[in-house]
Amino acid sequence: MSKQRQLKLGAMVHGVGHGWGEWRHPQAQPNASVNFDFYKQQTQLAEGAKFDFVFIADSLHIHEKSSPHYLNRFEPLTILSALAATTKHIGLVATVTVSYTEPFQVARQFASLDHISGGRAGWNVVTSWLSGTADNFGKTEHPPHAVRYRIAKEHVNVVKGLWDSWEDDAFAYNKQSGEFFTPGKLHALEHKGEFFSVKGPLNIARSQQGQPVIFQAGTSEDGRNFAAENSDAIFVSPESFDEARAYYNDLKQRASGFGRDAQKLSILPGIRPIVGRDEAEVESRYQQAVELVGIEDAIVALGRPFNDHDFSQYPLDAPFPELGDLGSNSQKGGSDRIKQLAKDEGLTLRQVALRFSRPRRDFVGTPEQVADALQTWFEEGAADGFIINSLLPDGLQYFTELVVPVLQQRGLFRDEYSGSTLRDNLGLDVPANRHTTPQVQEKSEAVA
Amino acid sequence: MSKQRQLKLGAMVHGVGHGWGEWRHPQAQPNASVNFDFYKQQTQLAEGAKFDFVFIADSLHIHEKSSPHYLNRFEPLTILSALAATTKHIGLVATVTVSYTEPFQVARQFASLDHISGGRAGWNVVTSWLSGTADNFGKTEHPPHAVRYRIAKEHVNVVKGLWDSWEDDAFAYNKQSGEFFTPGKLHALEHKGEFFSVKGPLNIARSQQGQPVIFQAGTSEDGRNFAAENSDAIFVSPESFDEARAYYNDLKQRASGFGRDAQKLSILPGIRPIVGRDEAEVESRYQQAVELVGIEDAIVALGRPFNDHDFSQYPLDAPFPELGDLGSNSQKGGSDRIKQLAKDEGLTLRQVALRFSRPRRDFVGTPEQVADALQTWFEEGAADGFIINSLLPDGLQYFTELVVPVLQQRGLFRDEYSGSTLRDNLGLDVPANRHTTPQVQEKSEAVA
Repeated sequence: MSKQRQLKLGAMVHGVGHGWGEWRHPQAQPNASVNFDFYKQQTQLAEGAKFDFVFIADSLHIHEKSSPHYLNRFEPLTILSALAATTKHIGLVATVTVSYTEPFQVARQFASLDHISGGRAGWNVVTSWLSGTADNFGKTEHPPHAVRYRIAKEHVNVVKGLWDSWEDDAFAYNKQSGEFFTPGKLHALEHKGEFFSVKGPLNIARSQQGQPVIFQAGTSEDGRNFAAENSDAIFVSPESFDEARAYYNDLKQRASGFGRDAQKLSILPGIRPIVGRDEAEVESRYQQAVELVGIEDAIVALGRPFNDHDFSQYPLDAPFPELGDLGSNSQKGGSDRIKQLAKDEGLTLRQVALRFSRPRRDFVGTPEQVADALQTWFEEGAADGFIINSLLPDGLQYFTELVVPVLQQRGLFRDEYSGSTLRDNLGLDVPANRHTTPQVQEKSEAVA
Repeated sequence: MSKQRQLKLGAMVHGVGHGWGEWRHPQAQPNASVNFDFYKQQTQLAEGAKFDFVFIADSLHIHEKSSPHYLNRFEPLTILSALAATTKHIGLVATVTVSYTEPFQVARQFASLDHISGGRAGWNVVTSWLSGTADNFGKTEHPPHAVRYRIAKEHVNVVKGLWDSWEDDAFAYNKQSGEFFTPGKLHALEHKGEFFSVKGPLNIARSQQGQPVIFQAGTSEDGRNFAAENSDAIFVSPESFDEARAYYNDLKQRASGFGRDAQKLSILPGIRPIVGRDEAEVESRYQQAVELVGIEDAIVALGRPFNDHDFSQYPLDAPFPELGDLGSNSQKGGSDRIKQLAKDEGLTLRQVALRFSRPRRDFVGTPEQVADALQTWFEEGAADGFIINSLLPDGLQYFTELVVPVLQQRGLFRDEYSGSTLRDNLGLDVPANRHTTPQVQEKSEAVA
């Protein structure tokens, strides 16, 4: 069993839920998005089931039509720092934008979380797709899509450079001589680029996993290249097995093209499984989930990848409207896909909206049926694992209690953690510090 | 006892220590500044002794001569979020600059910490005094001192405005009707000012303490006015009882001048007490502390309020050098005071450096002697309480185990927490939301 390729599992912890109506479920805690006990309980469920990581999504702009979860929720780095103190093994992945942050601050807060958690931090790099975000950060315009990816590349490079400010053996701690660190093992970055100018060094060392793990969710052409070149794990939301497999093959090829070991890049579809103990409970729980997605909410949700476009202005049962390049400077990959699907299948607005908001049937079933589906995707080249984004309030509990044991019995998922860092969980190597050569100490410019 | 005015106590948790040599103490953990167990243990000591809060200092620029603690330490908001998960009552005060941050992000992370902790967050507002900070944040120049205080005023106003985005009763949570929040109770800020342009609203509600508590440490003219107008608590480092009392009176008068209730503004000198069970232990511990401060380290430390000026270029035993306006764009209040003291007392450079680095004798003694000194400062108009910045590795333990019981016996300090928020601890009212009138709902512009 130890040599069998293992599934990777993450849990999206998402307060009152991803959609507009999930908080209305009878068992939903309507304040879940700012309820620390809820986050702690969900994370401990995931850790109890030996999940690789929990994942916190994010955005930085709200208005009256925003989803309940977006309106009032924890900030990712603070909530994950708190969860670090109540867990021991599970990875902690925070979504943080590159478009409205300073690399020095991002590098520092992730490194701090990485130390607090003993090497369990991950950064989900996003470029922000809502143009209203600019208004909260004193910017006159939201950067165009292609520019955001240029910013992303430079930002991430600066952050990674800052993370290597201190060589791993820099701290001498010699109380007798008074040498706290070894001169020459602290390195300024001296970065001057198109968007950022950052001298460094960073005022925090590397943790035991070397650097936090990089997550990304690119689906556009720029996004795919960025993810294939820079990320350790990819969060993707495919519509079907075929789409997932095509994406999987494409990203692995791109990663190889960048000279990387494609096996080390994990592709993790986000899924919304619905599990029941038997067929009757499956159907009952599926109907509960469907009832939480009204057409009005689905229409609002559909607008999100189009920069919160108002789709209520179009007739529901007419063909999906012609939108021109709307969405191309927002969530480009996602909005392009929606347009393409509507065209390919000749769908109405109502059909498109419900298709993207209602739970798909791929992962709805008894524990064995859901495990079968996961196994098929995993073994037939569509996924290295999954991010579980539970729809019902007790969805994660059902999944961990019913599906995970089946995966473990099949030898597809761990029974115990074998290490203590997120890199250990994901089977990733500790990256060498750029200033340290394996055998011989490289001569590099020390901080003056 | 319940009606007696009570001391307020905070603990500075500071890793390997404030000075350059403290990590060399035989019992010091040299990695304490990135050791979560150390922070947890110190914070639990403080909470066990019923302290009002723990306090995390900060800065954003290092170089080879920086103090060991500055070189490699936790970031305040992340470490305090982790500590929130391991404590129940103690306040959590994070130092965060206004000169290199975005108000939206600051407002959000503090609000998130405030929710995680159940209303225990405090913000120590600083303007950053090291000009090298600019190089880490892509700025061509560090803003001049007076500009930094204009930035501070606007930044804090924006943050406080964002904190009031949601009225306290905004969330209807009506699952039947689908009303998650009441329209009209969500407010955009629409701020356009000299330095910041922030539309809002913030994507997180107020916590049970309404808003995080504002701390400040102003000693310059601008700093004093800012503190008197905007802060709930002031951290100050007086050289003597007379200086402390003069500052205390000045700040209380300024607060009254701004139309505030001066009693609600707590003035909290930071002190470095050294306690022993008897005279012999007192002397032994004092000598240990003195030995940790070598003249070379004291000379480096002296440079800090002067923008890390290199004082090693001057003769040690000649009169303190003439420095012109050096320091006036760095820590202006602190550097002015050093110059003045050197001049008034005709001191040499060596004398000045040791005066500011070695522990003062005011709070060195047996538990009763230290309690006497605290009581005198408290009752004779020099302090509303103290921030304990322990010098020896076991300094906080000595203080909490030996001095706090004496203060409790004298009725000067609580035996138990009476509330659950930082405002409860400090006796501060929950500020009304600016959009909510006490009786009648004010008509205000809702977010479109």
